[in-house]
Amino acid sequence: MAPYLLFLGDAPDLLAAKVAIGLRDWRPEQCIGQWRLDQCRIDLGLEELSPQAARARGAKTIAIGVANRGGIISESWLDALETALEAGYNIASGLHDRLSDQPRLVAAAARHGGQLWDLRAPQGSFPIGNGAKRTGKRCLAVGTDCSVGKMYTALALEKSLHELDIAASFRATGQTGIFIAGTGVPLDAIVADFMAGAVETITPANDAAHWDIVEGQGSLFHPSFSGVTLALIHGSQPDALILCHEPQRQHMRGLPHYALPSLEELRDLALRCAQRVNPDCQVIGVAVNTAAMTPDEARDYLQELGQRMQLPAVDPYRDGAMRLAQALRDL
Amino acid sequence: MAPYLLFLGDAPDLLAAKVAIGLRDWRPEQCIGQWRLDQCRIDLGLEELSPQAARARGAKTIAIGVANRGGIISESWLDALETALEAGYNIASGLHDRLSDQPRLVAAAARHGGQLWDLRAPQGSFPIGNGAKRTGKRCLAVGTDCSVGKMYTALALEKSLHELDIAASFRATGQTGIFIAGTGVPLDAIVADFMAGAVETITPANDAAHWDIVEGQGSLFHPSFSGVTLALIHGSQPDALILCHEPQRQHMRGLPHYALPSLEELRDLALRCAQRVNPDCQVIGVAVNTAAMTPDEARDYLQELGQRMQLPAVDPYRDGAMRLAQALRDL
Repeated sequence: MAPYLLFLGDAPDLLAAKVAIGLRDWRPEQCIGQWRLDQCRIDLGLEELSPQAARARGAKTIAIGVANRGGIISESWLDALETALEAGYNIASGLHDRLSDQPRLVAAAARHGGQLWDLRAPQGSFPIGNGAKRTGKRCLAVGTDCSVGKMYTALALEKSLHELDIAASFRATGQTGIFIAGTGVPLDAIVADFMAGAVETITPANDAAHWDIVEGQGSLFHPSFSGVTLALIHGSQPDALILCHEPQRQHMRGLPHYALPSLEELRDLALRCAQRVNPDCQVIGVAVNTAAMTPDEARDYLQELGQRMQLPAVDPYRDGAMRLAQALRDL
Repeated sequence: MAPYLLFLGDAPDLLAAKVAIGLRDWRPEQCIGQWRLDQCRIDLGLEELSPQAARARGAKTIAIGVANRGGIISESWLDALETALEAGYNIASGLHDRLSDQPRLVAAAARHGGQLWDLRAPQGSFPIGNGAKRTGKRCLAVGTDCSVGKMYTALALEKSLHELDIAASFRATGQTGIFIAGTGVPLDAIVADFMAGAVETITPANDAAHWDIVEGQGSLFHPSFSGVTLALIHGSQPDALILCHEPQRQHMRGLPHYALPSLEELRDLALRCAQRVNPDCQVIGVAVNTAAMTPDEARDYLQELGQRMQLPAVDPYRDGAMRLAQALRDL
């Protein structure tokens, strides 16, 4: 799909541009520039390019980098997107709404030979998981809640492993991750019977020293999505788990009536489940989103937490994931 | 959908007729008779009726009571099924293959005003689960493995509760169960994000004294399907769990490389997961399939097991589920 021109549409704030920010931060070499409509209120600091100008620099695909409430394809984008197809682009989207359900886009793509990629729609069919031991090593990020930095942690860890000259591949299980990796499965959109098999498919047998760094989803403690998380644990048969946490959170995401579990509870339950498919699995570190703390507070918190858990405790955003990568290397 | 004429097709053995046997055993009042093709090798002991004769006695729907390898709709059935539609029947099927994908059946149904019900296809859309506490009580059967008698146990328990004049509803989560209950969700066919929400939908708020008896699926210890099981536990927020087991089983179903967990392991993990959504949840009994034992062996085994687990231990097939129903009553 890459290289991309990042379409920011009429994004009102940075929160709406999660996909574009992920691509910019983790695959900058694939981002030729940004393209905004008049109403757009944000700036990712990339070069502002028209579709024509970006095409001349090698961009092949418009990445829809913005999501609005409900994940719909906005009417106000259609003129622009049609123009891009006319200019020879493909379009890729991780929105709930499908490009392939938009008659104008389908017709324009057919006319101009462009592809429409809906990354949230599962591609092909998957087998039933079989739990058979595969060669290669796997690390999975699990969280006390949804949206506590599991994807960010996995990507930072892949980067640090590469810096240590250790072969490693980020394995995407959500829309933003699939954009970044260029491949993966949208696990939350897979039919229940095939969840574990889909995870096995994207973490295949590999060189003995190779690490798959698997993007986590949901939480074993989140009643809405826990089944997805357990399928991910059993399908990825992890050798190593990383616990992800956001200390400021008052309750489980979207569920005011549920408190977060402690990191100890997460460690015990996730390890117990993972050891069903890999008896040697270990928890190797904690990754914390300390964005709400001052640098001093964060340092003190992480130091105390590391002692309490007897594990490396880092904020991958502030500190990078090198200590986690070293823990994997030393396993 | 009921009353039914049970279509046994060309079933080679009783194993192929699981759906028909379930209907005969649990909803005999809805089974007007059986209908077999010439090659059929089994007999369910129901009256042998032609579609015309069964129609005259009130049958409304042909229940496809047989499954062949792969769950396909056999070519050799089509003439017969078309004849039934001509005679004014609806057809219901829990097969993987869909009736609605068979042009001959679709055309015949349209011509004669019959309905085609594909029970394995999820009906409508489901919300994301929210884990909010609902009134009424719920009991869920969980297993050391797949296919260890969870559905049978739930149906036997519903029957025993009714004998005790306790309001109770069997809640179906698989194809055979949906046939028997006339409603339910085919949980293994639901999109991952909506599994828990689908279970919440079929176990809604109810009278405080009413019991939902929820059909279990898979096993927390079965790497292929564990995610479905956890969604079921969190979606049904059980007040009571029943542990289901088959002592003769040598390995997890379909996975020769996985041993079964002990009943103690199942108790501990299932309870821990269930208490996330219902802190008061208790394990109230054990249901064992002792078909491979003599009556004396079974009695001794269950007595020893009951002492070991400090729980009522029964074989619902041999003994019924009254002791489990009493345990629910006494909770």
